[in-house]
This record gives sequence, C-alpha cells and structure tokens, in this order.
Amino acid sequence: MNDKKIPKATAKRLPLYYRYLKYLFSSGKKKVSSADLSEAVKIDSATIRRDFSYFGALGKRGYGYDVEDLMNFFSKQLNQEQLTHVAIIGVGHLGRALLNYNFQGQNSIRISAGFDIDEEIVNTIYEGVPIYHRDELKEQVEAQQFEVAIIAVPGPGAQEIADDLAEAGVKGIMNFTPLRLTVPDTVRILNVDLSNELQSLIYFVQYSDSIMDEDME
Amino acid sequence: MNDKKIPKATAKRLPLYYRYLKYLFSSGKKKVSSADLSEAVKIDSATIRRDFSYFGALGKRGYGYDVEDLMNFFSKQLNQEQLTHVAIIGVGHLGRALLNYNFQGQNSIRISAGFDIDEEIVNTIYEGVPIYHRDELKEQVEAQQFEVAIIAVPGPGAQEIADDLAEAGVKGIMNFTPLRLTVPDTVRILNVDLSNELQSLIYFVQYSDSIMDEDME
Repeated sequence: MNDKKIPKATAKRLPLYYRYLKYLFSSGKKKVSSADLSEAVKIDSATIRRDFSYFGALGKRGYGYDVEDLMNFFSKQLNQEQLTHVAIIGVGHLGRALLNYNFQGQNSIRISAGFDIDEEIVNTIYEGVPIYHRDELKEQVEAQQFEVAIIAVPGPGAQEIADDLAEAGVKGIMNFTPLRLTVPDTVRILNVDLSNELQSLIYFVQYSDSIMDEDME
Repeated sequence: MNDKKIPKATAKRLPLYYRYLKYLFSSGKKKVSSADLSEAVKIDSATIRRDFSYFGALGKRGYGYDVEDLMNFFSKQLNQEQLTHVAIIGVGHLGRALLNYNFQGQNSIRISAGFDIDEEIVNTIYEGVPIYHRDELKEQVEAQQFEVAIIAVPGPGAQEIADDLAEAGVKGIMNFTPLRLTVPDTVRILNVDLSNELQSLIYFVQYSDSIMDEDME
C-alpha cells in the first residue's frame, strides 16, 4: 500500500475497475487503454488516470495497462482473496432481495447470518443462510466475528442495532435506513439512502443543464 | 436558478439538507447554524457552506440560516411541490421492498406503476400500485408519461428495458443491476450497485488509515 491517501471517490470506483478487468481477463484480453476502460465503465479517462496515479505506476503512457497485472493488483487491494462474512439485520423484502442476490459474482463477500424478529422466519435457513432472533445479535456477531453488517430494517430500532453491532466489534455498517446513525470513530457507516438517491436523480433530470458533468458514481 | 453549475456531489446532498430542515421547521426551530446542521447531517460545515454558496446568499455569516426560508428554497429546488410519478420494472423482492416503502415521507415521489413477467403478480394491484406485464412497458410509460423509472430486475434484459424506456420518453433511470446501460445523452442513469458499495465499505474498513476523511455521501 502506498503512503498517499486515497480519496473516497477513488476507493469507491475500485470495485468497478476490478470487475471489468476480470471480465477482460476471462475473455482473453492482454492490454487495455484508459480510453477503452473509460468507455466500458462510463468514467472519463482523466478520472481513471488520476485514480490509478494514487497507486503509483500501473501502466506506461501510450502502452495501455496490462490486464492481468492490473487485475491482480486491484484484487489484492480489494482483498478479493479473502472471504468477508457479512451479517444482515432485517430479513424483510429488502433483506431477502440482498440474501437472494448474496453478492453473486463477488467471490469475496457472503452474507452468512440474518437477524429478524419475525417468528415466521427466525430459526429457519433462508437461501442457505441461518436466520437468528434479533435478541441474539450481539452474541452471534461476537461469536462469528463479523466485521461488516448490513442494516435493512424499516428504521425504528436501527440506532440500537448499530450500538449492539459496534459493541460486538463490527467495523463497517451499510445502513439502508434513512436514519443517520451515531457510532464510535472505529466504525464506518455507509449510508445507502435510496430515497435521497432517487430524489437526486429527479433533480438531475429537471435541472440537467445546471449540473456539472462529472461522473456520477 | 443560478447560472453557476452545481457539482453532482452538492446536488446529491440537497435532499439530505431539505429533510433535516423540514424536521427543524416542524419542531418549531427558527434558525440553524452550519455547525448544528453539520452535526445533524454528518457533513462537515465547510462542505455545507460551499454547497450553499452555489445558490447565492442563503444566510449571513454568524447569524445562521433562517430555517423556513432555507426549507422553502430547497423545496423549490427539489421540486417538492410537484409529485413525480415513477415506474418500477421488476417486482421481485427488491421491487417489493421499494413498493412497500414507496418513498414514504417524501410527498413528492410515488411509484405508481410496476412491470414484471411473473404471471402471479401481473394484472394485480400490489401495495396500491398496478402491476403490468413487461410487454406493455413502452405503451404504458408513454401513456402515463413517466419521466423517471427504476430498473430492479436481476440483470438480463436490463439493456432492452432501458432501450424501451428511452424510446418511451423516460429521462432518468435508477439502475439496480450491475450492468452498465447504454442510453442516449438525453437520459440520465443513476447506478445503485449495492455490490460495489459493500465492497467499497469493506475496503474502507480494511484500509481506513489510507483513505481521506471526506464525507462519504
């Protein structure tokens, strides 16, 4: 790892680059230019070059990037070689959508425990994943050493869930509720506020002439 | 509307500001400082002041912002007074999660039509919303003049759906599939790639020391 700090926007684009490189590699391509990469992932090539610059010399100007080298580099960066187990709290429609999908095609992420209060689903196996009662959250997260969790409950109770997760040693929370959670500095929150996202899209559609044309990741 | 171009990151934060202002207003607060706003929405106050600066003088330094004025201003910006009807394509678990939720608390957004191929749900009313067959997509989107649509299908078929939506006059698409869609310049795509998002979070957790501490919206 380079000593240079990486902007979050760059970090967020790494999985995108990685996935496309994996695709290129599996289809036998050896080299890729930043222009081709740009076209495929819909991020302008200046941004791509700037992103890559944070990781030092990954390619030579005019020669393009070596697909396998770059793929392996990002694989390491993204810790693709190690499986990350994730817990999900809330197994309603959203939780089930995430469990059905279970990050297929991402060999490195698996939701391996669910938590809910609905007696219909508690103590069953859904899509291969055991569903525990919410009351067992702290105990199970500690025992199974989850570092990352997804909160997919409707909203109320989310702060208490976040408190339990933080106390049980979780370091990263993906939060689907519209609530802003308060957590210790040791815990990172990724808010996925679909309502805000959609409202922003509507805003973009209505005022498209007034918004800068950067990439929208 | 000011002539100055607004960065996308700013545009994306507007709904967040608006929601908190609405909350303050409903609880009787007259003034809010950028520091208080910052604490509540978890965005640093320098970013807030910079965001607001794109809209001209919204407050006086040291006096804080007038809650009602600011709320009304953002309400107009976000077109809160007009209801935007949204179509959703794919009424599986994710689609149902979005339909159940249906942007409650956002008076200005409503999913008002669903499309699927599952005969079990086609031609029924789910959560008050009619579900049409996917084959009727173009016809219904044209007839009901949808400008914004959500693609919540598993993946295959998403490009054809996007083609149909673009031809039927849709201007904004929220895309939940991991596919990068190709659309005319007149259509905006908002990619919500939950797999990428989670992978980024894991990356943040693992390399937290190497990532810049900006806000993470």
